[in-house]
Amino acid sequence: MNIKDYMTELGRSARAAARVISSATTESKNTALLASADALNASRVELKAANEQDLTLGREAGLDAALIDRLELTDSRIDGMIEGLTQVAGLPDPCGEVTDMRYLPSGIQVGKMRVPLGVVGIIYESRPNVTIDAASLCLKSGNATILRGGKEALYSNQAIAKCIQSGLNTAGLPEGVVQVVSTTDREAVGQLITMPEYVDVIVPRGGKGLIERISNDAKVAVIKHLDGICHVYIDDKADLEKAFNIALNAKTHRYGVCNAMETLLVHKGIAPQVLPRLAQAYGEKGVELRGCARTQEVIECLSATDEDWATEYLAPILSIRLVDDMQGAMDHIDQYSSQHTETIVTEDYTRARRFIAQVDSSSVMINASTRFADGFEYGLGAEIGISTDKIHARGPVGLEGLTSQKWIVFGDGHIRV
Amino acid sequence: MNIKDYMTELGRSARAAARVISSATTESKNTALLASADALNASRVELKAANEQDLTLGREAGLDAALIDRLELTDSRIDGMIEGLTQVAGLPDPCGEVTDMRYLPSGIQVGKMRVPLGVVGIIYESRPNVTIDAASLCLKSGNATILRGGKEALYSNQAIAKCIQSGLNTAGLPEGVVQVVSTTDREAVGQLITMPEYVDVIVPRGGKGLIERISNDAKVAVIKHLDGICHVYIDDKADLEKAFNIALNAKTHRYGVCNAMETLLVHKGIAPQVLPRLAQAYGEKGVELRGCARTQEVIECLSATDEDWATEYLAPILSIRLVDDMQGAMDHIDQYSSQHTETIVTEDYTRARRFIAQVDSSSVMINASTRFADGFEYGLGAEIGISTDKIHARGPVGLEGLTSQKWIVFGDGHIRV
Repeated sequence: MNIKDYMTELGRSARAAARVISSATTESKNTALLASADALNASRVELKAANEQDLTLGREAGLDAALIDRLELTDSRIDGMIEGLTQVAGLPDPCGEVTDMRYLPSGIQVGKMRVPLGVVGIIYESRPNVTIDAASLCLKSGNATILRGGKEALYSNQAIAKCIQSGLNTAGLPEGVVQVVSTTDREAVGQLITMPEYVDVIVPRGGKGLIERISNDAKVAVIKHLDGICHVYIDDKADLEKAFNIALNAKTHRYGVCNAMETLLVHKGIAPQVLPRLAQAYGEKGVELRGCARTQEVIECLSATDEDWATEYLAPILSIRLVDDMQGAMDHIDQYSSQHTETIVTEDYTRARRFIAQVDSSSVMINASTRFADGFEYGLGAEIGISTDKIHARGPVGLEGLTSQKWIVFGDGHIRV
Repeated sequence: MNIKDYMTELGRSARAAARVISSATTESKNTALLASADALNASRVELKAANEQDLTLGREAGLDAALIDRLELTDSRIDGMIEGLTQVAGLPDPCGEVTDMRYLPSGIQVGKMRVPLGVVGIIYESRPNVTIDAASLCLKSGNATILRGGKEALYSNQAIAKCIQSGLNTAGLPEGVVQVVSTTDREAVGQLITMPEYVDVIVPRGGKGLIERISNDAKVAVIKHLDGICHVYIDDKADLEKAFNIALNAKTHRYGVCNAMETLLVHKGIAPQVLPRLAQAYGEKGVELRGCARTQEVIECLSATDEDWATEYLAPILSIRLVDDMQGAMDHIDQYSSQHTETIVTEDYTRARRFIAQVDSSSVMINASTRFADGFEYGLGAEIGISTDKIHARGPVGLEGLTSQKWIVFGDGHIRV
């Protein structure tokens, strides 16, 4: 079978399964999730054997140590997947929620009902646990899903998929609810993102290059996450202790994550009080500092260029810029931010209110670390990704972001006059 | 200036204006709307002179009478535009609304704030009043907008745009908030839909062909409305009077609208009681009936083909199909509906509940005419269109559909541990 026919077949099967899962009961969806967890637990030997095939091929292909590490399925990672399934089973079912129901002058009663999107395509790189994350969130939100993982994890993903199929069988749900693409041919991705008749939305998870390519070529809506160039602005009305803690945490809590701070903006009036202590703390953590000319008058650091302001380091590097006032910080953010997450540290009520209202990013914070921009921290229970789009879903996307709302109308024989 | 440079210039200006309008006060937005209404009222002579230029060119170009009629700006249509502006000024401002604010275990307080999308591009055909509808909704929702109307209405649209500019001036808002594309070159559309750096979303209003072309080529999110193949299903547990009234109203209240019924589905058990009376009433209104074989055993009518089930007539034509039960009706809807609006007429609680839950259309109704699927009827105050998409906005799109939600986080020096 050629790739196009194969993907069409997956699409057709997903569309048919979507009809079933969209009106499945909460109980049957939870049964499928928990039975999948049981199947994972019972299949540790098979999972690790399949994973070993991927690891062997990966080592032969010369994958670097970091990639091999991400690829490996250890017992503790299998435990993590089992816990993830159990957690998603415990989340409230978003489907069927009715809101804003009210009577209108004509006498009809109108409201909104939350419903699944339909078929979700997920394209991701080599971490096999994403297979479980994505499948469980899509299933719980009543969607069918087609999963296209990295070719390095093919055998692992197929072994995981078998466990999910077994869970679906236990719950009496069709296997088409969760399908893993079993070819590594790149044309499969090209097909997946251009079948609007079978796929309603694509969620790509991976590097910026991959996501840009997919967004460019897709004929289907894409919930995308490009980069996270996040800012902390320390205002001259900041509490020094809060400023120190937040600026340190936002950069050094973890380096390779999208909600880490990449640029620190400091009001010129408070820089002498806050920067030297911070510079020392960053130095102890091995963070390289790149500052503007005025920063270099306050602390010793490398010289930042325009390119630094536009770079997501994902590394122990921080650019620092002094600004004249909050407007200067907001102008910098407006020009360089990827509209992911920005924080102001201030005790000033009016400035805090203005910053929250005017900064156009998916998360805007006062006196809190950018590291909080995360589905778990926001109480979503889990996240399928963080959207840097403005349409449909912004910021952390959980179960609700995988649903939509239809209008429902109750009448008693009402007609338009 | 070439088209690309011209459109880039409009885009840049819109992006700059979006920053201002996004945080403009409700009062200044309303001032701009009401001052635009005043300007329209004071410019009737100029508006009609500009419109006369369009009409003359249109007649010379051989436009048909219906198009010429839609193009004409009469005093009563100018009154309508003035009233539209006044109504939108009276709607609540969606921007800044904060919802779902709550404390999380870490101690941070998280909620969502409603914010404008940014820059909205509207592509529409020849009715000049769309210029006012679109501009007023975008302005009130805090967006900048670039309007590309039909070439037949160029002079009229520019005269209307002058009135809006005057309104923006009165309110001290930048003219870039509302811009009308002043070239009729079709390349302008191609540019508008491929400038993600300047345009956040495109709303095309027009025929299905136009919208499909735009969706295909766009590199920007599109809120689109394809066709409206709406169904009424008369269940055998229907109240006969309600069924008669709704089926008649849904088809004959207006013919050329997307929320008119195109196919009537009737439970075979009730067809002999409901169809003859309906057929007579349709006959009196001049509606042509096309029925399935079983329908033809109950009433006299033409024979419907598979193509009929998939056709949006927008005309006094109705296809009728008998079904064995509600599942048969839902299967037909699943196969042929454009997912716009479907109604069930029934007194049966369990069936009503199942129909509402399982039918996957943007509006699903019980005992009410499909004609209610409309922004005004749903209490949105006004609508910029009806979306047949699932992502972002489904069904009638009003002010809220032109906004998004960002996350806001309040802390007190909180860091991730």
